[in-house]
Amino acid sequence: MYPVQQSAGVDVIDITDPGDPRVDDFRDLNSVDRRPDLPALPGGRKGKGLVIAEGVTVVQRMIASRFAPHAFLGVDKRRRELGADLETPALAGVPFYRAEADVMAEIVGFHLNRGVLGAARRPEPLSVAQVLTGPDGSGDRGPETIAVLEGVNDHENIGSIFRNAAGLGVDAVIFGEGCADPLYRRSIRVSMGHALLVPFAKYDSWPHDLEAVGDAGFTLVALTPGEGAVPLTEAVGAAKTAFLVGAEGPGLAEHTMRRCDVRAVIPMSRGTDSLNVATAAAIAFYERARR
Amino acid sequence: MYPVQQSAGVDVIDITDPGDPRVDDFRDLNSVDRRPDLPALPGGRKGKGLVIAEGVTVVQRMIASRFAPHAFLGVDKRRRELGADLETPALAGVPFYRAEADVMAEIVGFHLNRGVLGAARRPEPLSVAQVLTGPDGSGDRGPETIAVLEGVNDHENIGSIFRNAAGLGVDAVIFGEGCADPLYRRSIRVSMGHALLVPFAKYDSWPHDLEAVGDAGFTLVALTPGEGAVPLTEAVGAAKTAFLVGAEGPGLAEHTMRRCDVRAVIPMSRGTDSLNVATAAAIAFYERARR
Repeated sequence: MYPVQQSAGVDVIDITDPGDPRVDDFRDLNSVDRRPDLPALPGGRKGKGLVIAEGVTVVQRMIASRFAPHAFLGVDKRRRELGADLETPALAGVPFYRAEADVMAEIVGFHLNRGVLGAARRPEPLSVAQVLTGPDGSGDRGPETIAVLEGVNDHENIGSIFRNAAGLGVDAVIFGEGCADPLYRRSIRVSMGHALLVPFAKYDSWPHDLEAVGDAGFTLVALTPGEGAVPLTEAVGAAKTAFLVGAEGPGLAEHTMRRCDVRAVIPMSRGTDSLNVATAAAIAFYERARR
Repeated sequence: MYPVQQSAGVDVIDITDPGDPRVDDFRDLNSVDRRPDLPALPGGRKGKGLVIAEGVTVVQRMIASRFAPHAFLGVDKRRRELGADLETPALAGVPFYRAEADVMAEIVGFHLNRGVLGAARRPEPLSVAQVLTGPDGSGDRGPETIAVLEGVNDHENIGSIFRNAAGLGVDAVIFGEGCADPLYRRSIRVSMGHALLVPFAKYDSWPHDLEAVGDAGFTLVALTPGEGAVPLTEAVGAAKTAFLVGAEGPGLAEHTMRRCDVRAVIPMSRGTDSLNVATAAAIAFYERARR
């Protein structure tokens, strides 16, 4: 229906048969068992371990990230909106599978308003040490503000925390015990793609990894509504600050809080349930950024 | 299966037949057409105009609110968790329909983890004038901080804004043009029930109602990422402050911003899309509350 186009970047390939195996990486996005963004597990069970970006903005951020897309699927309108982003030499030879909206809906399993998807294989995860020392490993350009999560098992909250981190000057995120997968499609979507851009690492040994955070020069600030906490305003001034946040309800584990240098509270007017975990984190990030 | 209990408050009535008409107000909660929390429209179309609270905490807040419940549906475990809250004289004679979890699931149309629901009829809405002058109409105990929303058409964002308002000292909310229904079940759930406790009004004439806000002594602060805005820290000090927030993407309409006294920006590090509207509002509320 459309002619195949040549460009410096992607190869545009028209897909008219929803069963075409070339688009298998985009198939059944909402399936509990087969969705491609589940981590691959030993023995070949579960997902393909892919990272899926959806929508023009998030796909643009994927292209700019260390999650190098190996294929795209989208309607022509969205391909045109991406424009020059698809013509970068790094994407030379990468297929852009172009489909009509109804064909695309049959492939992914529902009508996808955002109209374009990118798929990347999960790269080697960053280690806690890599995240703490920054991109060149020297620590000179290392992070000054990080967020450390424990028990945050909701993909939407994780996405929001990435988005807030990006907006409010947080350099990296460390995932402690009990957190949901930051590369789940919903996390990435809610993060507006910042989950692909803000460096993150998963704990190696919890909560012992917190020692490494302290050894890297960070003051560990536990956010808690509990007793004995100082107001947030008094707890954000260290040269290097790590904010620890726990799940709504239980909050941080006691053995985690004991490893922190200070406990900080956001003064609240009507009870302690009145901030969502991502909102509480955003306020801590803001309080630090406003100095 | 359980004996009917007598108490000072609710009447406990066992429901074993999911088709029992006495629980019709809780039927098909997720139905697009028949869900009971849709506003009643002229001609009898659409919903029943009910307000539905779900879960122990939100039901407790409904009981404490001006949205007087006329019926409850729940499993016995949740009824026991509510305990004394159900025994207040104000609930004398109000039915608590007690059901097993599977019967309840058939009634509401899905398995409801939170296990208890309250239903109230929508009371007469508050007017903008009532919200601005406070509970006794004199203005003496009137609000000092309010939020004014325009084009916020996402139930979840509205719920979050209520929750953040309650936690961070905002006294009332005014809904301008283009906002979603604050009494939709999802709004109430995400608000943790604070949508029932924080006074709110819908605009009467938009954006002219903003004159009434100004006449009531409020400084109107437009939150915007746009040009010509001062940092938020410089815009929160007036004795009475109204924060105006618009939808993500378009933001506030220009004719709305022109009616504001000051435009304020939250300094951000990586692009203007990096805060959700409810999070941006929370930061403004926090910045004011921290003084």
